[in-house]
Amino acid sequence: EMIEKIKRSIDGGARFLIASHIDPDGDALGSMFSLYWVLRSLGKSACVYMKDNIPYRYDFLPGPQDLLHTPPEECFDAVFVLDCGSLFRIGADYEKIGALGPLISIDHHETNEAFGAINLLNKAASSTAEVLYGLYVSLNVEFSRNIAMNMYTGVFTDTGSLRYENTNPEAFEICRRMVETGVKPAYVARMVYENHPMERFLLLGEALRTLRRINGGRVALAYVTEEMFARTGTTGEYADGFSEEFRKLSNIEASVFIRQIADRKFKISMRSKGVIDVAAICGQFGGGGHRNAAGC
Amino acid sequence: EMIEKIKRSIDGGARFLIASHIDPDGDALGSMFSLYWVLRSLGKSACVYMKDNIPYRYDFLPGPQDLLHTPPEECFDAVFVLDCGSLFRIGADYEKIGALGPLISIDHHETNEAFGAINLLNKAASSTAEVLYGLYVSLNVEFSRNIAMNMYTGVFTDTGSLRYENTNPEAFEICRRMVETGVKPAYVARMVYENHPMERFLLLGEALRTLRRINGGRVALAYVTEEMFARTGTTGEYADGFSEEFRKLSNIEASVFIRQIADRKFKISMRSKGVIDVAAICGQFGGGGHRNAAGC
Repeated sequence: EMIEKIKRSIDGGARFLIASHIDPDGDALGSMFSLYWVLRSLGKSACVYMKDNIPYRYDFLPGPQDLLHTPPEECFDAVFVLDCGSLFRIGADYEKIGALGPLISIDHHETNEAFGAINLLNKAASSTAEVLYGLYVSLNVEFSRNIAMNMYTGVFTDTGSLRYENTNPEAFEICRRMVETGVKPAYVARMVYENHPMERFLLLGEALRTLRRINGGRVALAYVTEEMFARTGTTGEYADGFSEEFRKLSNIEASVFIRQIADRKFKISMRSKGVIDVAAICGQFGGGGHRNAAGC
Repeated sequence: EMIEKIKRSIDGGARFLIASHIDPDGDALGSMFSLYWVLRSLGKSACVYMKDNIPYRYDFLPGPQDLLHTPPEECFDAVFVLDCGSLFRIGADYEKIGALGPLISIDHHETNEAFGAINLLNKAASSTAEVLYGLYVSLNVEFSRNIAMNMYTGVFTDTGSLRYENTNPEAFEICRRMVETGVKPAYVARMVYENHPMERFLLLGEALRTLRRINGGRVALAYVTEEMFARTGTTGEYADGFSEEFRKLSNIEASVFIRQIADRKFKISMRSKGVIDVAAICGQFGGGGHRNAAGC
């Protein structure tokens, strides 16, 4: 049904645009780039638009030589919008992008607004890469190295290394198939998770010394200050992912991580394990996010 | 052939002993406990011997009610020795245990000495649990919850959450099958990786302050001392997995983690990313292990 519509759209078109959300993660990038190579293998022309740059840990993903960071002028036979619950997630130029052709939304977010002319949605899927996998199989795609590397990384990172609640049997199955085509799991893991500079560990050491339990022990709290950045030769971005480290504390419902960004100014990240709605709490301080991951 | 021999040994026997190495990891425990439930399901009696206690993070694994920590007096129809390259790995009482019945060694270590009367070895396997999987499939084992949880944990932890060089397509396939029988990946991950007491983070903070690059920057080195254990209220067990943390440093080939175990006595764990053979290095100091993970 939806897959048949997308197949007809691809068959009948020649030029496609592929877009995803700001602050791109492994699933956004792996999904866009895999679709780029799939369309290329079908003899189509494809452009990839993404507001932001590629984070350094995803530099290894094989993608197009040129990425568009500003909306192109021409129109397309269709615009694929991947891993976005709403068109707004594309970033400031979402209206311009949305006007460049009929929209095909492919996504796994529960909140997806079915904003496309065609919507291929599976809320039970681990990742958008998993939704695309179904499309590729029905297109009889041959999983080349470029496609497989992107698919593997999309599924593997969006399941947090196959550790999160969204990890399903299909996630393992897709990873297995991609590894059989030649993807090296240790290589991807090294690129994505084992690529930190020394200063990051020094800063983590400082942060760990501030770790404490609050709210009767149910919540973990830690912080980094400008003084710590200075002492370890780091900046705020070195603290990316620290909230994930503090999740590992036993018997907590949520974690709070405070990062000083200026004199008397702080960025607060909260992570929940499901019971506490951290988006609601952050909302009270002018922030927001998801139930299990929010900030202010 | 070896599988057929083991099947005949199980068919012809009634009482079995199962043993594995000191300082047991997820693969040692998952392998032993899964075999315990398999033998039980075949109507056999089985005892599990293990020198050390179960580390707290593996407490959730379903095993027998009683574990033997001292060698039993009676003899057995066979003694399964799992995940041990040599009998010596069982610990101080290895000679007593080795005399309690014909030995069946099931293992994946490159250095395995084939010390058993029967030796089921596969050096290409990710884990001993993977070697056992082949046996279980040929025994037509039904993967009950108890068996599946142990098998999943064995494969998942010995591949470092499917991130190490030993991660192969079979590892994904076994995990997928176990998840289909009802294992919850997020539950296992939470138990194994997100279940640390506060003191563990304090100790990690201390260890991070010792982190440095050696050998021209190619190797990361860190250590914990008895003084640090005392200061943070921890014991050696709290440092389990620290080597994994230091792997995350960029541009290193290997990591060395030194844990003080007594006055002037140290346990050294080495992890390699493939180029450096740490088993060879540890072998020079009376230790051993795998090419990418070894100790002395």
